Amino acid sequence: MTISIEAARHVLQSQPFSRLLNAKLLQFSTDGVELRLPVSEQVKQQNGFVHGGVISYAADNALTFAGGVVLGPAVVTSEFKINYVRPAQGHEIIARASVIHAGKTQAVCRCEIFSLADDRETLCAVAQGTIVAMHGRNDA
Amino acid sequence: MTISIEAARHVLQSQPFSRLLNAKLLQFSTDGVELRLPVSEQVKQQNGFVHGGVISYAADNALTFAGGVVLGPAVVTSEFKINYVRPAQGHEIIARASVIHAGKTQAVCRCEIFSLADDRETLCAVAQGTIVAMHGRNDA
Amino acid sequence: MTISIEAARHVLQSQPFSRLLNAKLLQFSTDGVELRLPVSEQVKQQNGFVHGGVISYAADNALTFAGGVVLGPAVVTSEFKINYVRPAQGHEIIARASVIHAGKTQAVCRCEIFSLADDRETLCAVAQGTIVAMHGRNDA
Amino acid sequence: MTISIEAARHVLQSQPFSRLLNAKLLQFSTDGVELRLPVSEQVKQQNGFVHGGVISYAADNALTFAGGVVLGPAVVTSEFKINYVRPAQGHEIIARASVIHAGKTQAVCRCEIFSLADDRETLCAVAQGTIVAMHGRNDA
Repeated sequence: MTISIEAARHVLQSQPFSRLLNAKLLQFSTDGVELRLPVSEQVKQQNGFVHGGVISYAADNALTFAGGVVLGPAVVTSEFKINYVRPAQGHEIIARASVIHAGKTQAVCRCEIFSLADDRETLCAVAQGTIVAMHGRNDA
Repeated sequence: MTISIEAARHVLQSQPFSRLLNAKLLQFSTDGVELRLPVSEQVKQQNGFVHGGVISYAADNALTFAGGVVLGPAVVTSEFKINYVRPAQGHEIIARASVIHAGKTQAVCRCEIFSLADDRETLCAVAQGTIVAMHGRNDA
Repeated sequence: MTISIEAARHVLQSQPFSRLLNAKLLQFSTDGVELRLPVSEQVKQQNGFVHGGVISYAADNALTFAGGVVLGPAVVTSEFKINYVRPAQGHEIIARASVIHAGKTQAVCRCEIFSLADDRETLCAVAQGTIVAMHGRNDA
Repeated sequence: MTISIEAARHVLQSQPFSRLLNAKLLQFSTDGVELRLPVSEQVKQQNGFVHGGVISYAADNALTFAGGVVLGPAVVTSEFKINYVRPAQGHEIIARASVIHAGKTQAVCRCEIFSLADDRETLCAVAQGTIVAMHGRNDA
């Protein structure tokens, strides 16, 4: 069921929204997942910081891919919670996620989101959520 | 401290990321906030549904504006939680948020996110979070 | 699959912890669930308010029972989030929960928790969470 | 502002609900907080597992005390989110919490809750939440 980083990158590249944000997958293993995206003008809010919605995208997607490491490629985020701890600046957003507990059809994952400026990472948000395998999905 | 819908729309338009997603503010009052954004190809994920990160952006921003109704324009989302209940399709995303409880420096708000197709709204996510006035912000 | 309020009360009474807290089920229907518990000395924290852990118990359990209305008696809370909005005082805690969206194996529910004093209800917390049918549970 | 473990234990002992549950504070330092409570019959639910409300109490309280390490004794949990990952059995519940980010008036904390049986710890839940200093509290 486990997929390679190349296959995971292919999934990411098949997401038009991730292409729009230029998101890249730097790590994809049982140690965790690292997703990065550049801070361009277009991802900002009115005060020049990265928009919270971009940070939540990074968290959501890193959590999904972290779940994908153990559950396979057909996964979705069922729910997550995010705490913003600092405004995000710099030139890159880094989201690192890993699995806390995995069952057969879902995984609880955790994510830390950093901003990178002058080679220094600053924590800007933390998230926790549930990833479910789509065959176990609960939709009508 | 209360701001007009025109002023709130000006804030939204000052967010490059909200302009990128073509988000519009349809309602902004003590009854609640309605934010809408069109479903273009670029907001989708690999299966043709709207990317969860776009839904979380809509939730985050609608929550922030809902808090802004009672706290004034200088607000940020401190934290929120989102449950995705159905894949989002259709041609428009509608996020409606309102205040559950407001104090002097923060407000707890709730948001429902719908997708619109053929004039029919379908609930696709629900969120709950805390909005804080920036003068009461807790950053170092 | 739907169970009667008598059957639901029997489940509540089979929970030693709910008996310890004297929790009662006042409503159990597709309109929602109402759980109440008296505010005795033993459920308080150091400042004389009801302990947050008691409020979170009420939220957790009301959410579970709300999910049980649509999913049947064998359900557990998978996750939830709670925002405390006011210290809880008075002589009774009332938790009202209802289903926002239900699938075959899980339900997303919402809960409002009030304290009752002098016939006046005061909102003290709001919660949102996921209830899963145990046959769909994800444990190893 | 920092308080000793003795002072923290005194706070815990001043909480009637924590006394009811026999909660003890094993660690209280900048490295984190450890709270334990014995699994007696009265903290169980209908299937013989520890009631989710007891686990959420342990999470809530451990998070509060973790925040108290950096914010001082007058703190409350503003909000938290918990994911239950396994039914809790055994003879003791252990909640370990630590600060992820602290500002002047609030701290974002994380907690892992384990059950202990035969000297083996098993993760049963993870939580994340916000602790606020009461002087910075937002109540009306």
